[in-house]
Amino acid sequence: MKPLVNIVKIGGNIINDKEALSAFLLDFATIKGLKILVHGGGKKATELANKLQLKPKMIDGRRITDVANLEIVTMVYAGLLNKNIVAQLQHNNCNAFGLSGADGNAIKAHKRTVINIDYGFAGDVDLVSSSTIIMMLKNNLSPVFCAITHDKKGQLLNTNADTIAAEVAAALTDDYEVVLYYCFEKSGVLKDVNDENSVIENINTASYKHLRNEKIIREGMLPKLENCFYALQNGVSKIIIGNAEVITKNNRKHTTIIL
Amino acid sequence: MKPLVNIVKIGGNIINDKEALSAFLLDFATIKGLKILVHGGGKKATELANKLQLKPKMIDGRRITDVANLEIVTMVYAGLLNKNIVAQLQHNNCNAFGLSGADGNAIKAHKRTVINIDYGFAGDVDLVSSSTIIMMLKNNLSPVFCAITHDKKGQLLNTNADTIAAEVAAALTDDYEVVLYYCFEKSGVLKDVNDENSVIENINTASYKHLRNEKIIREGMLPKLENCFYALQNGVSKIIIGNAEVITKNNRKHTTIIL
Repeated sequence: MKPLVNIVKIGGNIINDKEALSAFLLDFATIKGLKILVHGGGKKATELANKLQLKPKMIDGRRITDVANLEIVTMVYAGLLNKNIVAQLQHNNCNAFGLSGADGNAIKAHKRTVINIDYGFAGDVDLVSSSTIIMMLKNNLSPVFCAITHDKKGQLLNTNADTIAAEVAAALTDDYEVVLYYCFEKSGVLKDVNDENSVIENINTASYKHLRNEKIIREGMLPKLENCFYALQNGVSKIIIGNAEVITKNNRKHTTIIL
Repeated sequence: MKPLVNIVKIGGNIINDKEALSAFLLDFATIKGLKILVHGGGKKATELANKLQLKPKMIDGRRITDVANLEIVTMVYAGLLNKNIVAQLQHNNCNAFGLSGADGNAIKAHKRTVINIDYGFAGDVDLVSSSTIIMMLKNNLSPVFCAITHDKKGQLLNTNADTIAAEVAAALTDDYEVVLYYCFEKSGVLKDVNDENSVIENINTASYKHLRNEKIIREGMLPKLENCFYALQNGVSKIIIGNAEVITKNNRKHTTIIL
């Protein structure tokens, strides 16, 4: 039997809330066995960009990462957030080790190909180096990934944290049984985005198609679920979407995604 | 015989000069065998602080690290500089892995005790975890340290990069033969700070005392040399102070420090 590794991705809204983040990091530290954290960005990068009058350009609601904004996300994600999260986890007696995709060449990506829109220094993942991550896990370290990758040609790239979680999860399935958690402020995938009681308990390939066609699942939830099915198709055992509390409270409502 | 590890510390003036930094990183990548890089800060943190109108308070020429400036150095040192250096080294086929003292609890420090002056979040090193660094070296990774540490209670701390280099070097002497390079823009310790030809080729404990008393060695060079003698007293084999080119050019003038 393969050893189990839990991979937890936390989103920006938890990171924006100091108390919620601290509570989550206490919970994360109590997870028994092997674990990996992937964290998103939060509003700090936007705040810093605004202060520096470098507001990122948006096209169709998507951020364009120009040189100045790549510097900002590198500072905030890989520096401020990643190191503060690691320091808190160390305090919680979790032997956390922060990294970007450049470190140990853990995640190689390429600058997104320009078709209609040039997203700037946005990176699409090519390859996760499972050996680097396995080395850390075997030494009882808990890798903490920020959403910065590189192209192995010296260029850092801004990469979606949900995608990083899915790619890291998929890369480890040869050696581990992988359970992936996507945690955010909601209780799961909701039928009605304003009703926390409308959690859809199970989603599979067939019901996802239906929910998408009926526009019950839409906008930001669509790429998240695409990442889920990608991970499942690549051998991830189970995916749970829910509130950050779900990692320690089994009875907390959540959505389970299966093939 | 213990295996050899080369530890190279580069200072701010190399980091401030994009071309000099690139040339150095090409040279560093060609060092055969085990190697560790420790980098200082450079002017980027000061520039960012100025842009944000958070100019750091100075007392007796020393920077006071308040909360806002700790955020800035964490962003710039651990984020922007560390990850760009790692990405460039990866491009140069050096399997670099960036870290702060918080990562893997590599360097535990404490907030400098207030005697007359409160330096704020300045960290004095308590303990280097050699096991974390050895694990990386054994896996052919080249650790790249920024000058941020933590207190294991969740607090990040701003720590002198020269000190980090000396402490990391000293911590590895049980397991490795350690050679330590302090690289900067000058050719070594100079008798006359304005004359690059006045390099003092060798300094030992006795001559250091003399040079200090005669005020030939003064100001910033004093703590650097204190770090050197600390490292030598703790088993480091050899210390070289010189221009960054010295790591690949044996015939480049430099200062050798011995006990």
